[in-house]
Amino acid sequence: MEDNIVKILEKVKNGEISVGDALLEIKKEPFADIGYAKVDLHRQIRQGTAEVIYGAGKTPKQIIGIVDIMLKNKQNTILITRLSKESAEIVGKAYKMDYHEDARIGIIGEIPKPTGIGKIIVATGGTSDIPVAEEAALVAEALGNEVIRLNDVGVAGLHRLLSHMDEIMSASVIIAVAGMEGALASVIGGLADCPVIAVPTSVGYGAAFNGLSALLSMLNSCSSGVSVVNIDNGFGAGFTASRINHMNLKTEVK
Amino acid sequence: MEDNIVKILEKVKNGEISVGDALLEIKKEPFADIGYAKVDLHRQIRQGTAEVIYGAGKTPKQIIGIVDIMLKNKQNTILITRLSKESAEIVGKAYKMDYHEDARIGIIGEIPKPTGIGKIIVATGGTSDIPVAEEAALVAEALGNEVIRLNDVGVAGLHRLLSHMDEIMSASVIIAVAGMEGALASVIGGLADCPVIAVPTSVGYGAAFNGLSALLSMLNSCSSGVSVVNIDNGFGAGFTASRINHMNLKTEVK
Amino acid sequence: MEDNIVKILEKVKNGEISVGDALLEIKKEPFADIGYAKVDLHRQIRQGTAEVIYGAGKTPKQIIGIVDIMLKNKQNTILITRLSKESAEIVGKAYKMDYHEDARIGIIGEIPKPTGIGKIIVATGGTSDIPVAEEAALVAEALGNEVIRLNDVGVAGLHRLLSHMDEIMSASVIIAVAGMEGALASVIGGLADCPVIAVPTSVGYGAAFNGLSALLSMLNSCSSGVSVVNIDNGFGAGFTASRINHMNLKTEVK
Amino acid sequence: MEDNIVKILEKVKNGEISVGDALLEIKKEPFADIGYAKVDLHRQIRQGTAEVIYGAGKTPKQIIGIVDIMLKNKQNTILITRLSKESAEIVGKAYKMDYHEDARIGIIGEIPKPTGIGKIIVATGGTSDIPVAEEAALVAEALGNEVIRLNDVGVAGLHRLLSHMDEIMSASVIIAVAGMEGALASVIGGLADCPVIAVPTSVGYGAAFNGLSALLSMLNSCSSGVSVVNIDNGFGAGFTASRINHMNLKTEVK
Amino acid sequence: MEDNIVKILEKVKNGEISVGDALLEIKKEPFADIGYAKVDLHRQIRQGTAEVIYGAGKTPKQIIGIVDIMLKNKQNTILITRLSKESAEIVGKAYKMDYHEDARIGIIGEIPKPTGIGKIIVATGGTSDIPVAEEAALVAEALGNEVIRLNDVGVAGLHRLLSHMDEIMSASVIIAVAGMEGALASVIGGLADCPVIAVPTSVGYGAAFNGLSALLSMLNSCSSGVSVVNIDNGFGAGFTASRINHMNLKTEVK
Amino acid sequence: MEDNIVKILEKVKNGEISVGDALLEIKKEPFADIGYAKVDLHRQIRQGTAEVIYGAGKTPKQIIGIVDIMLKNKQNTILITRLSKESAEIVGKAYKMDYHEDARIGIIGEIPKPTGIGKIIVATGGTSDIPVAEEAALVAEALGNEVIRLNDVGVAGLHRLLSHMDEIMSASVIIAVAGMEGALASVIGGLADCPVIAVPTSVGYGAAFNGLSALLSMLNSCSSGVSVVNIDNGFGAGFTASRINHMNLKTEVK
Amino acid sequence: MEDNIVKILEKVKNGEISVGDALLEIKKEPFADIGYAKVDLHRQIRQGTAEVIYGAGKTPKQIIGIVDIMLKNKQNTILITRLSKESAEIVGKAYKMDYHEDARIGIIGEIPKPTGIGKIIVATGGTSDIPVAEEAALVAEALGNEVIRLNDVGVAGLHRLLSHMDEIMSASVIIAVAGMEGALASVIGGLADCPVIAVPTSVGYGAAFNGLSALLSMLNSCSSGVSVVNIDNGFGAGFTASRINHMNLKTEVK
Amino acid sequence: MEDNIVKILEKVKNGEISVGDALLEIKKEPFADIGYAKVDLHRQIRQGTAEVIYGAGKTPKQIIGIVDIMLKNKQNTILITRLSKESAEIVGKAYKMDYHEDARIGIIGEIPKPTGIGKIIVATGGTSDIPVAEEAALVAEALGNEVIRLNDVGVAGLHRLLSHMDEIMSASVIIAVAGMEGALASVIGGLADCPVIAVPTSVGYGAAFNGLSALLSMLNSCSSGVSVVNIDNGFGAGFTASRINHMNLKTEVK
Repeated sequence: MEDNIVKILEKVKNGEISVGDALLEIKKEPFADIGYAKVDLHRQIRQGTAEVIYGAGKTPKQIIGIVDIMLKNKQNTILITRLSKESAEIVGKAYKMDYHEDARIGIIGEIPKPTGIGKIIVATGGTSDIPVAEEAALVAEALGNEVIRLNDVGVAGLHRLLSHMDEIMSASVIIAVAGMEGALASVIGGLADCPVIAVPTSVGYGAAFNGLSALLSMLNSCSSGVSVVNIDNGFGAGFTASRINHMNLKTEVK
Repeated sequence: MEDNIVKILEKVKNGEISVGDALLEIKKEPFADIGYAKVDLHRQIRQGTAEVIYGAGKTPKQIIGIVDIMLKNKQNTILITRLSKESAEIVGKAYKMDYHEDARIGIIGEIPKPTGIGKIIVATGGTSDIPVAEEAALVAEALGNEVIRLNDVGVAGLHRLLSHMDEIMSASVIIAVAGMEGALASVIGGLADCPVIAVPTSVGYGAAFNGLSALLSMLNSCSSGVSVVNIDNGFGAGFTASRINHMNLKTEVK
Repeated sequence: MEDNIVKILEKVKNGEISVGDALLEIKKEPFADIGYAKVDLHRQIRQGTAEVIYGAGKTPKQIIGIVDIMLKNKQNTILITRLSKESAEIVGKAYKMDYHEDARIGIIGEIPKPTGIGKIIVATGGTSDIPVAEEAALVAEALGNEVIRLNDVGVAGLHRLLSHMDEIMSASVIIAVAGMEGALASVIGGLADCPVIAVPTSVGYGAAFNGLSALLSMLNSCSSGVSVVNIDNGFGAGFTASRINHMNLKTEVK
Repeated sequence: MEDNIVKILEKVKNGEISVGDALLEIKKEPFADIGYAKVDLHRQIRQGTAEVIYGAGKTPKQIIGIVDIMLKNKQNTILITRLSKESAEIVGKAYKMDYHEDARIGIIGEIPKPTGIGKIIVATGGTSDIPVAEEAALVAEALGNEVIRLNDVGVAGLHRLLSHMDEIMSASVIIAVAGMEGALASVIGGLADCPVIAVPTSVGYGAAFNGLSALLSMLNSCSSGVSVVNIDNGFGAGFTASRINHMNLKTEVK
Repeated sequence: MEDNIVKILEKVKNGEISVGDALLEIKKEPFADIGYAKVDLHRQIRQGTAEVIYGAGKTPKQIIGIVDIMLKNKQNTILITRLSKESAEIVGKAYKMDYHEDARIGIIGEIPKPTGIGKIIVATGGTSDIPVAEEAALVAEALGNEVIRLNDVGVAGLHRLLSHMDEIMSASVIIAVAGMEGALASVIGGLADCPVIAVPTSVGYGAAFNGLSALLSMLNSCSSGVSVVNIDNGFGAGFTASRINHMNLKTEVK
Repeated sequence: MEDNIVKILEKVKNGEISVGDALLEIKKEPFADIGYAKVDLHRQIRQGTAEVIYGAGKTPKQIIGIVDIMLKNKQNTILITRLSKESAEIVGKAYKMDYHEDARIGIIGEIPKPTGIGKIIVATGGTSDIPVAEEAALVAEALGNEVIRLNDVGVAGLHRLLSHMDEIMSASVIIAVAGMEGALASVIGGLADCPVIAVPTSVGYGAAFNGLSALLSMLNSCSSGVSVVNIDNGFGAGFTASRINHMNLKTEVK
Repeated sequence: MEDNIVKILEKVKNGEISVGDALLEIKKEPFADIGYAKVDLHRQIRQGTAEVIYGAGKTPKQIIGIVDIMLKNKQNTILITRLSKESAEIVGKAYKMDYHEDARIGIIGEIPKPTGIGKIIVATGGTSDIPVAEEAALVAEALGNEVIRLNDVGVAGLHRLLSHMDEIMSASVIIAVAGMEGALASVIGGLADCPVIAVPTSVGYGAAFNGLSALLSMLNSCSSGVSVVNIDNGFGAGFTASRINHMNLKTEVK
Repeated sequence: MEDNIVKILEKVKNGEISVGDALLEIKKEPFADIGYAKVDLHRQIRQGTAEVIYGAGKTPKQIIGIVDIMLKNKQNTILITRLSKESAEIVGKAYKMDYHEDARIGIIGEIPKPTGIGKIIVATGGTSDIPVAEEAALVAEALGNEVIRLNDVGVAGLHRLLSHMDEIMSASVIIAVAGMEGALASVIGGLADCPVIAVPTSVGYGAAFNGLSALLSMLNSCSSGVSVVNIDNGFGAGFTASRINHMNLKTEVK
């Protein structure tokens, strides 16, 4: 941003643009305002990276409008999260879209080749946690990561988890998805030496309080290196894991 | 109780006692009323079993009064739980008492020989959980159980727990004491094949919410066979474990 | 587990198996991985004991897949808990299944003969608690226990409970199922001399907060020997009660 | 109030008072404003009835100021609730005051003779509940009621409560004071046929959450005829019980 | 109960009944056990008083079974609360029943003549609170009370409430029904000199948290003489108000 | 009110009205009682100001009844908030009504010309917050305010908000509508120098707890000058903003 | 801000400053960075307006450092809120400061003459709420407002409040400060026609939950025009009230 | 681990060690058991990396015991977190320790040279958040990271944060530490393109509920790439940030 201002100021100095135009330029909105939404076009779009639309609370018409703007701005891959089956059917008529019903994700465009440091593991405590885990896995894949899925490795049967020690030790990031008591995050956090992102799910009943139990459990993990995202927030976990797994970009820049 | 009523009714039939006296007898209070407390003298006191006084919210004077009644009724072992150091000093002057400051337990009389089915394991997630665990262990010992203590076997370092698999597999009851995310109960519950009693502790900070996190975690354990007592309730766990470990008494009676 | 390792090591020493095979053997997974689930085949299956599938959050197809594996591994009795009526109809076409709609339990195979120490009482505070109590009772029966049902013995009419004192005093374990204020557990806990497992239910309205009131009530029971499972967790109570009622197996082993 | 307005309007009609004076009269404040407090002098003070000052959050000097106004207005009995020991010492120097340290109540003036319909029972679950119960009992006595105290009759030992069935059945109002799981209110509510006022106390620890457990328990009582006041609100219970026990005044008026 | 035991004991003394029969008699259950429910037939049914069935969580068939028992035992008036429209239609075919859809109450039999001390006022904060208030009012009427309804007198327009000061001052009990901030109870409590029973309702949205706001508000009322029942518990309020309004029965007995 | 009483008293003095009539006059209800509601006709209706009916929990018939009374009392503009689509269709047949489905508001009559000090900005964090914001905006417009809508200016893309600094600095009141973490209110509060009214919305999932997260966030705003209304309470925000924006009326009066 | 950029750009155009210097100028920090704090010097300081330091969590030394910067920047009036007595003594040695112990506010400099539209009323429910109310009142006075204090006008004695109707009707803003059930805000909101700012206080005990009860109550106020600040946030209420009472500045500017 | 087993198995094959010794070797505990703690010596200690002791709930004597073991195992740098001033004085006598009182951290040994990818920014919302931020910063430094501290950049004065855009854009990880409404995390998350770790603090009062407000806020961040640790958990944030900043080690290994 600083560079831009410098350039604009230099143009002003050189008389290439007027003061008013410069002011306008500085304030020019790096987003497209379509009334109900301001679509962010600001980020320099790197090859193979997906853009994401949060589908909940938006009408299919609004979603289509946002996709339109994005496609016009040359977005290669577009993810729509929290997309209901009903909305997916309407959006799917407007564009060629790959819809994953359990994860409630629609993908328009191509899944890029993995570009990250290593592999991201997405592990679930039980079968019921899979939809949230799939959201994380698909987001991570769409953002250019190789993903390994380890399902149903909850702590009630430790040997199921321990039989995957090799994958766990070689992962660059692990996403631990679990409901009920959410102990999976702590156990993985105690075994692994990479960053662990914990996703509490609303799986469970009674005193699970829709994911509160797993959330508190994960926040209080006695294992170091565990950080937490919102209940059922597969997207957030996948996105954050991808950022960590792309720290090499940071390295290269330096 | 039924037997007693039968005997009284027979005495009435035989004219041995009057109707009024019978009524009185039936209603006769099986406890000693000392104003601020009604001391239960009802339970048939088996050899070697301890009686318990909940010390919190009672003045040393009140505690001494209750102990007096119990001793007069030939109680061999008396436990006073939640006994503050200040109260312990006063009570300790009235009776020879063994006071455990960290567990806040005072014991008057002898610890009986173990009479249960097997051994009770008391395991803690971390060093800070030891006071609550000690309350459980001392109560279990005073009630006639052999106790094994496994400290600092929290899930952040699984190998510390797994190195004690032999003890775990041979226990008759396991008490899992843990704060923070309380995952210990689930992991032990997944390994053991005996009843597991989970004790959440108020160890932790922030979103541990004084034990709420561990409590919810344990209630939502994905491992079967785990039941839970109140936060920091070492006494309840020790007492319940003892009942389970003395199921042989039930067997013998039959 | 130790024995197995010893045997494997001995085979290695004797050159019966290669180092690689030994390693493989040690790590061999004692479960069947069917993608969405890892079916535990590890536990030595004792005669007459049921295996349990948690039906919630699993599709009928997934459930059938898991049952398939279990049957192939000679499981005599299979319980499916939290099984919706819709799923039950589909699963019921694949196998001969006894479905209890109120308790949401499906049973495939035979109910074994009781093998425990004594009888398990399942008591309810009111008529509305019966579905949860039935889950507990059926689970206990499927695990080889004799069960007595005491319905509608809530504390608002103490005489209804007191008229069953004989059963209460002779039980080996009591499961107290109650919603609203959950006082049943404390009252039974004060009367009985066996372990009491309290099951809070979501019965009630307003400040019952979907079972929170009963849960807190039971955790704070002033009666000793009461431990608690999750709200509406009839399965957990039945399973734990069965473990306690089978402490004789522990005794025999010793 | 209507009568007063009628009288004032008639005086206006008769020219006995000016319009301005009438307006003044109508608006005349039935309280004494002493800056930090507006002391209510409005209620027609019946013989023997006490007035109450809530002592918490008031300085001794403020309390003395309020007492001054009350005494000048011929109040026979003045109760000061939630009065700390420190404040009591200062107030006690200004007036002859009977201070009950455990109930934190100071009483200035005489306790009146009982004038109610019958007796008010104040029952406690345990010894630790006595301070709150004493607040209720002293308030009820100061408001002209005969009070019976039943201490330590909690549900863990039902026989202790059942041995007082005579008192329970003959009471006009019962105040049930209990912490922990607060089951006392439901059990008494199921036995008695008079109004029951439940007072949850902050006695307990862990999941008692400072009285929340008892509060919810009492609000969800399955026994009819139970209403609830705030946690530790002995005053409110005593005051309400007195109003109910003085329904005869209502009757007589009719 | 004592009388009964005396009589039985006397019969034993006179040889009229055997000891065994006497024991049986003492333990004879004062309720009818119909499997899923134990119908209380214990209370001496006073003329004109209704018996109440809690309809929630019971099938129409179960309700009909309970009504059958009650009618056989000469119950004049039967109230069924929390009765859904669907159940009401089925029950209504079995008996002549007056069903109030908004209050979800069915009444079988006649409403008795009022027999209480005075009038019970049922006041609501707003139109949306009326269903709960109607439950209270109908229960009170069915239990023999005269009821005055004051609707929509919430504190946002104080003059609406103040215009009813005459009724308020002459009531024997007032039931204050309000959701949202529940201030109605405090304002009425400050104006009236009779017992006030506060009923929080689940009316409101957002931070009303389904009645929690009104519940806490009412529990913390700065007005004396206010006690509280569960959220939306119109039945409890009507029942308790009736007990208070029938304190004359207590008086007469003395 | 005082003036009215003075006038009435003077009439009494002059013998123009009787004492009884005067009393009646003083107590004359400034509202219309239609049984289920007391419609407030008290406020002096200023030109162009709307009256508001809270539609939730009222039947279409009740709403129509209230509108009838209002129209008879010459109300120019009537807003019906929280009006469901179903009710709107019925009410819309009785009167010409402009119904906004997303904001659930029906407007009968004309929107008045703006009469306030300046402009009210209604800003939303995201597209999903628009329905609540529309409620606020429509209410403010109906109460005589000019409204500017700034949608989708959440803090995740600060430049979207900063590009509207001119509007923000010139607003007389700003309504900040946001769910999830509700940070919009703090950021706007830090930028603006006018009163900011924060409206938390129930937008979000998991630990958003139906608006609790945004509510707490806004209450704890580190920016001065921010006050908060209930979750999703667009009406309250619009009404309060209008009062502030009409402070000129207060000024003129002085 | 825009003007500044225009001016800087013009200087660049005219060659008066270099591009680098312009960039620097644009980014020049409008605050003083003193390591542990960045003191805001940005706001155009209007005559007579106070600047505010939040004293909690700052050492006396840090506070003195911030005051130093402010005084150097010609701040006439400085308020320090949440200033402990201990800190006040140290700060008071460095500067002439007027310290209000109950409100925990220190004032350095002169209180300005009132410049707002009208009067701000600060009303309290009870004597215990006065400290919070004083914080609000002192802040409002320091920001140039005339303040009227109405203490102890809680709803338990409505006449105390109603006797101040004249002040209430003539206020430009009302701050309603109340703990316990917080009904004062709703009652005042129903009477007044100006904006009402509600301040819940932590006064109360038990189910008051440190102000939660009053907070929820105020958020759910059925009276329109009420907005809420944080529990015990007298400062926020005083600041917001002042902004509203200075809407004339907004008017004049236009 | 696998490698070790392979080696051991090969030694067995070669007859170098007996089966029993092999078993022993496999089970040899990679920790030192000192009774109250099992000190983890397992992790391969990389150059310059610190080991951490959680000081809360441990006696100085216990801490010293653990340090002893660590030093004997050649640990270069030892951090003791949550170390009270009292404990620090005792531990400080046993070892040369650098104690940071505000962050409650003691450091024994040398701080290593930074070895990570880039710089870690630790930003605070306000002065009161500094102690938690210092814990994070010191932990990160002790684990081999370069740390930049940005204090008091809360969202109430956005320009303070925006003036540090250069640092923000060049960071490899950002730790956002904030109490109250915790909006800092969302704003930074919206500006930065690196992983952001949010640390809610218990700074604030009233509805901040000891950090709950900030915690929920951060969990619900509308900015992507934000993950959260426990309230006041500076250690966890510093540790996790270090793991992310050392992803180059992962890269190199591959």
